[in-house]
Amino acid sequence: MIIVGELINASRKPIAEAIRNQDSEYVKKIAREESEAGAGYIDVNAGIFVGQETEYVKWLITNIQSVVDTPCSIDSPDPQVITAALSVHRGTAMINSISLEKERYDRLMPVIAHTDLKVIALCMSDDGMPETADDRLRNADKLVTGLTRNGIPVGNIFIDPLVQPVATNTTYAVEFLDAVERIMTGYPGIHTICGLSNVSYGLPVRKFINHIFAVLAIGKGLDALIVNPLDAMMNASLTTAETLTGRDDFCADYLQAYRKGKFEFLN
Amino acid sequence: MIIVGELINASRKPIAEAIRNQDSEYVKKIAREESEAGAGYIDVNAGIFVGQETEYVKWLITNIQSVVDTPCSIDSPDPQVITAALSVHRGTAMINSISLEKERYDRLMPVIAHTDLKVIALCMSDDGMPETADDRLRNADKLVTGLTRNGIPVGNIFIDPLVQPVATNTTYAVEFLDAVERIMTGYPGIHTICGLSNVSYGLPVRKFINHIFAVLAIGKGLDALIVNPLDAMMNASLTTAETLTGRDDFCADYLQAYRKGKFEFLN
Repeated sequence: MIIVGELINASRKPIAEAIRNQDSEYVKKIAREESEAGAGYIDVNAGIFVGQETEYVKWLITNIQSVVDTPCSIDSPDPQVITAALSVHRGTAMINSISLEKERYDRLMPVIAHTDLKVIALCMSDDGMPETADDRLRNADKLVTGLTRNGIPVGNIFIDPLVQPVATNTTYAVEFLDAVERIMTGYPGIHTICGLSNVSYGLPVRKFINHIFAVLAIGKGLDALIVNPLDAMMNASLTTAETLTGRDDFCADYLQAYRKGKFEFLN
Repeated sequence: MIIVGELINASRKPIAEAIRNQDSEYVKKIAREESEAGAGYIDVNAGIFVGQETEYVKWLITNIQSVVDTPCSIDSPDPQVITAALSVHRGTAMINSISLEKERYDRLMPVIAHTDLKVIALCMSDDGMPETADDRLRNADKLVTGLTRNGIPVGNIFIDPLVQPVATNTTYAVEFLDAVERIMTGYPGIHTICGLSNVSYGLPVRKFINHIFAVLAIGKGLDALIVNPLDAMMNASLTTAETLTGRDDFCADYLQAYRKGKFEFLN
């Protein structure tokens, strides 16, 4: 499972405050914690700071990379922010994200074409959010075609089929899960990724729903997640789900997690 | 989800003792608890009492049915025990179980043929336990063919693909899950059922593995479980998994479970 740590996002109050106060120690602390907890990428988002997003994303990346070697996932819809962020980023970053929205697509593609960047590609177009698995597959196919034509290998593409709230429509979770399965079987070597929290929007005990949804998505082949890597129940669920879906030879990862105390939250 | 309550099984110490002491109050208490917790069937097993199994199964059923209307799942490999149990059982029982083992099959089929009994059918033959999804499908097909030819409607058949320990072979859980999906799509109207605990045999924190495995199986279409209906985390997981797999219109079951305090164990 490839984990993108979601904590360094200015929509979270403590991060917004740390950015405002230029409290680099707090940012470094979170980066260290996410990296030690197993994040393969550290998401970096300063989107709430209109006009200062570029400056703050660069500041975040510089601070993060002063303490960890984990690459960042540069989380912005704005190609200018992404270009500026790449200028200070060491190693191979992840871009979060391209989509089929025409302006975003046309402006971002030249930035990422023929690079070895990892690219999150949202199954969204100017027609809006996808509803059905078919909508998602149509968008995924256009994204894969466009990205591979521009020299991005399939193995660097992370398709995000986009989670919608099950409280809005009973079929939304199923349609997402079906899309994951069809993308993973239809495009060998590709990754699928998502954030989880939208699925539980409008319902109580959201954390529990999110963790069950992650397990179901792993059952369909999902192999990357934008998630809080410090969430004990989520981590235990991801490890166990991977063991049960045949991704853990000799249950070695499961047993290692157990020995490290990763199931102690259950006591 | 159809829940078969697994607690009244003589392989569990307190039940073995209750049977030995003819403590009918304890049996009635557990039956009431299982029924109130949502069990659609109450499994009844006295298999450890060789020579007295028939007598004890009848005693258990009579006591259970003196306090609840929930039908029993008569859990024995022995057609004579099942026949005797049916003679005292009110309502439509479940038979746990037939298999392709020749002697069991030949002797039990006449007992259940052209009845409206629910029948658990194990994907097992005289060749032993199945290993792959293909093994399970081959056995499932023979069972469905045999049972329907003998007047058991597909909707009364509960195929148990048989869970094997993932600690023994990394592929065992996946092969089981694939089998569930193929049986549910290949035989419309059929049910799939299983016990969970074998999957975690030999590993630590078995309860957590079992609950993640249940979620994955529901994601593949599993619609019945032999389980402890008093297990709070399991119940929360089943409800949530059903909501997320499109089986819960307007999230009504989820919200009702929440209002009844079914997620309070998380606090």
